[in-house]
Amino acid sequence: MSGEHPPVADRGFETLRWRNGTFELLDQRALPAQCVYLALNSAQAVADAIRSMVVRGAPAIGCAAAYGMALEARRLQGGSRKDFESGIERAFETLSKSRPTAVNLFWALERMRARMKAAPELTPAEIAAALLAEAQAISAEDIRLNRLMGTHGGALLRDGARVLTHCNAGALATAGHGTALGMIRSAVQSGKRISVVVDETRPFLQGARLTAWELQQDDIPVTLIADSAAGFLMSRGDVDAVVVGADRVAANGDVANKIGTYSLAVLAQRHAVPFYVACPLSTIDRSIASGADIPIEERAAEEVTGYGSMRWAPPEVGVRNPVFDVTPAELVTALITEKGVTMAPDRRKIEQLFAT
Amino acid sequence: MSGEHPPVADRGFETLRWRNGTFELLDQRALPAQCVYLALNSAQAVADAIRSMVVRGAPAIGCAAAYGMALEARRLQGGSRKDFESGIERAFETLSKSRPTAVNLFWALERMRARMKAAPELTPAEIAAALLAEAQAISAEDIRLNRLMGTHGGALLRDGARVLTHCNAGALATAGHGTALGMIRSAVQSGKRISVVVDETRPFLQGARLTAWELQQDDIPVTLIADSAAGFLMSRGDVDAVVVGADRVAANGDVANKIGTYSLAVLAQRHAVPFYVACPLSTIDRSIASGADIPIEERAAEEVTGYGSMRWAPPEVGVRNPVFDVTPAELVTALITEKGVTMAPDRRKIEQLFAT
Repeated sequence: MSGEHPPVADRGFETLRWRNGTFELLDQRALPAQCVYLALNSAQAVADAIRSMVVRGAPAIGCAAAYGMALEARRLQGGSRKDFESGIERAFETLSKSRPTAVNLFWALERMRARMKAAPELTPAEIAAALLAEAQAISAEDIRLNRLMGTHGGALLRDGARVLTHCNAGALATAGHGTALGMIRSAVQSGKRISVVVDETRPFLQGARLTAWELQQDDIPVTLIADSAAGFLMSRGDVDAVVVGADRVAANGDVANKIGTYSLAVLAQRHAVPFYVACPLSTIDRSIASGADIPIEERAAEEVTGYGSMRWAPPEVGVRNPVFDVTPAELVTALITEKGVTMAPDRRKIEQLFAT
Repeated sequence: MSGEHPPVADRGFETLRWRNGTFELLDQRALPAQCVYLALNSAQAVADAIRSMVVRGAPAIGCAAAYGMALEARRLQGGSRKDFESGIERAFETLSKSRPTAVNLFWALERMRARMKAAPELTPAEIAAALLAEAQAISAEDIRLNRLMGTHGGALLRDGARVLTHCNAGALATAGHGTALGMIRSAVQSGKRISVVVDETRPFLQGARLTAWELQQDDIPVTLIADSAAGFLMSRGDVDAVVVGADRVAANGDVANKIGTYSLAVLAQRHAVPFYVACPLSTIDRSIASGADIPIEERAAEEVTGYGSMRWAPPEVGVRNPVFDVTPAELVTALITEKGVTMAPDRRKIEQLFAT
């Protein structure tokens, strides 16, 4: 388990990787202009990378946080057991504060902590090795689950379908293959002709920068639109399905996802376009009764007043920048997880997903 | 009528003006960073300014096109009557092709042509003087109608209302005061505390650049959001009314307006938020039966793949850039014109507006 991260054969990039004893993240802030990797060696560095959006996407954040714990364990393995344990605890806190909405972050950190507590007899060095193996396992498992979701969800897309997606729920948002884009990718790999419409997804432009680029790498036809053009396309009959990922799903099936998802779901319902949400079970937070209780991150004004170094809004304008919203379960045609397709998800059906 | 354009006392800018024998447009592409005026002296120059968005907004485009006709008449007044008449006809064609959706453009051009035809006995120089007077009258009338709409529509907004608007239907989209922002401005001038939420309005960012700046000039509190955040704010109960302008209204009350308007109307209906459309009668095109027949302009891909000189989407990505959409009349709570407030507009009520 100390070797390379499993390579993702079908693309020329890896969202995150363990290579020659170093953890690297593809810097998504620089895409698509540059494809550069940042090497990180501490929990703080990983937390900073998550906060500053070097890596984003609920499953990828979870994988990165797991590596953050593993990196910290390696960094501290030569010290006393007491320093090691308190350092690991600090790493847990630091990473858990990096972003509030995506639940996979907390899920992965809990899984890393459980791995550590399951082996109280080990030395710090042995724990560090076990945590690295666990982080690698989480990433490998993420890819495996995405492929399962792709198979289940891809079957929902007919040959020739024009699929609208939002933000990036692709290989770049996961350890590989993707959730929403995994469905599309699997449908294409099964021989279907799928074309994708992606909205640019202001303010961070994940659609314009990441999804457009990622689909180009796989030669999947992609058309970029402004966020506000989705309703027009649906009104003209140009969208056959909407497919998105999720940052957190409540026990009743309400879905927190990138800001704008809710509007797409409302429009899809009006136009009788199926609205699909693809995510692993680790994105479902059964401790949260409904979407109203999911914390919604609000980010800096500077994300909305311009982009990068460019400012276009007047100075001192007030800004609100909620970066997620909540789509009520009633608007979700189906939830796609590694367990299969759950039509019209609700509390009872979601409980059953965990029971079987 | 050969004097200055009537000054707009309540602001430090004029969208268009006739000054010292020169027609000038505020270059809205440079706002809010710079407030510069471009001097124009031919119909072709005005058509280019309309096409390249130096000036935008249905009523302002109409006023500018009228000045374009007047400028061409002045330019050609020293030549033969035959050259003058064919030149004016070419100017009409050139200006009418500058943008396809906003009907005020065609309305203003027809009015200018009618003015010319009403005086066949005049010399070219006399016609040129008459056309300049007519262009000035159209602009002065636009401001007067906006103030009337402001009075009618402002009464719909309660003290303390949080009003969401889209794009810019303000002084910058008209000869002065504005349509949607005119309602807000009039409500504020009547002593009500109104706060405004404006979405940035990709791709041309009229909300972030123009509406935010224009409201700041009047000290009206304004908060900028991403286009896709409007649904979230409505779902949290943070929006009391939506107010927009229009580029063309069909005989049945369907409204063509800036791309994204339709999505806001659908969301407003879901959240029982009133959805108001403010426009002069000249924006209503009774020759068009329904919104399905309104031509929707699609603009260049470069507007969506970045902004200004900055590119963020990958090269060669496909783009669709429809810049208007159609909101069906059933989603319009009220249409506000110079004639008053028309609740739940339909074909019959719109006919009555023109009958009285």
